[in-house]
Amino acid sequence: MNLRVRFAETDQMGVVHHAAYVVWLEAARVEWMRERGLSYRALEEGGLSMAVSGLEVRYRSACRFDDVVRIDCALVELRSRHATFDYRLFVEDRLVATARTTHVPTDRRGRAVRLPADWSEAFAPHLERA
Amino acid sequence: MNLRVRFAETDQMGVVHHAAYVVWLEAARVEWMRERGLSYRALEEGGLSMAVSGLEVRYRSACRFDDVVRIDCALVELRSRHATFDYRLFVEDRLVATARTTHVPTDRRGRAVRLPADWSEAFAPHLERA
Amino acid sequence: MNLRVRFAETDQMGVVHHAAYVVWLEAARVEWMRERGLSYRALEEGGLSMAVSGLEVRYRSACRFDDVVRIDCALVELRSRHATFDYRLFVEDRLVATARTTHVPTDRRGRAVRLPADWSEAFAPHLERA
Amino acid sequence: MNLRVRFAETDQMGVVHHAAYVVWLEAARVEWMRERGLSYRALEEGGLSMAVSGLEVRYRSACRFDDVVRIDCALVELRSRHATFDYRLFVEDRLVATARTTHVPTDRRGRAVRLPADWSEAFAPHLERA
Repeated sequence: MNLRVRFAETDQMGVVHHAAYVVWLEAARVEWMRERGLSYRALEEGGLSMAVSGLEVRYRSACRFDDVVRIDCALVELRSRHATFDYRLFVEDRLVATARTTHVPTDRRGRAVRLPADWSEAFAPHLERA
Repeated sequence: MNLRVRFAETDQMGVVHHAAYVVWLEAARVEWMRERGLSYRALEEGGLSMAVSGLEVRYRSACRFDDVVRIDCALVELRSRHATFDYRLFVEDRLVATARTTHVPTDRRGRAVRLPADWSEAFAPHLERA
Repeated sequence: MNLRVRFAETDQMGVVHHAAYVVWLEAARVEWMRERGLSYRALEEGGLSMAVSGLEVRYRSACRFDDVVRIDCALVELRSRHATFDYRLFVEDRLVATARTTHVPTDRRGRAVRLPADWSEAFAPHLERA
Repeated sequence: MNLRVRFAETDQMGVVHHAAYVVWLEAARVEWMRERGLSYRALEEGGLSMAVSGLEVRYRSACRFDDVVRIDCALVELRSRHATFDYRLFVEDRLVATARTTHVPTDRRGRAVRLPADWSEAFAPHLERA
């Protein structure tokens, strides 16, 4: 997905604050699903969440206000009790960050559950090698 | 209440971003309640929310990273279907902003409801003139 | 402009947190300028900011995760020392909020200045009646 | 340091959004410095930043609105061109998350620089083993 850097996402160093990227990764996962006919909203409305259990970001180069950031997202691991996404963030051709998030399927009460078969089958065709 | 400005709350103008104040007002309401023996967490756990229906902020002077901001909060109107809080924000003796928020009691589904009698009675002694 | 509600913009009431709208208004102003051939980035890089001096929001109806929010923005007042924008926010045909922001031209040190003639002339054709 | 979870930091899962922790880590670093007689504000005002180059968070258990979160912070690596902090986050006695951030000293233009001798000497006594 592409997104435009918001002014509110900058800090007094004059560049994007590092926490903003974490919000972008989430938006990129949701769009990654949408592009594949999957709806994170439907998943949530069905009582399931993909809670974030792990987060890693490597910041390589700054992003600035009004930059267009492209986020390439890939599902690189899919198990019944966790899933992993990798990300590469670009401004034009410049790689500005890489990231990985791990997720645990949880129910409405926040308890870890097995990924239901229908969602597992829906995700499986989109699994890529890390 | 007093709070310390976080680095993430600044923007590239080198001062606090105006949206951060809105989050502070909310924190100040929660602390205002706590200081009076009222718990916003208990209110929420009981299925009630005080949804924000209106917001006004006048920004008079900038706040900076690491400043300690004092927020004076007052309940200035209390009806069965809405309530109003006024705020004055200071850094040391400097008035940096004034604000007003209006609230509507809502149930878990977000529908406007009458403020239950127990909460109305709990708030009433703390009403001040605007 | 249209924007997609991010998961991070929700709160435990299950709807968008009221502070998120404030960030959206800013994004809408920046896009309003871009659509008219004006660049807020260029304005900032030239040492000028349009600091927010006042903010009013009326929340009428909740927005939810993944909603597409349309923000109509209008410049309704333009003076040498302040400017005012009005906003209407929609989800499909539902008006979810209205807002107004007032702005003061400031220099790099945050001091109020007169809007330079070139920017004043660039904005003037886009002034609408409130 | 201790901090109180803000309502705005929750999401529609009813717990704290994972990006909020990243902002807390930063606040904890600033307080860690203050407790040792060091000022991040002074460091910034002197033209130096400790830009975040890497971030890892392991989320173990959810935090909720109004929880008091204790963040233990330790400087575990200190080189002329990078530094590493480790964190443990608790709600009462429950470990809710662990984290690590790596930092690169940068100048006002965002270029990586060597940590100046005065700051290196100020930090050195506070280095702990990972």
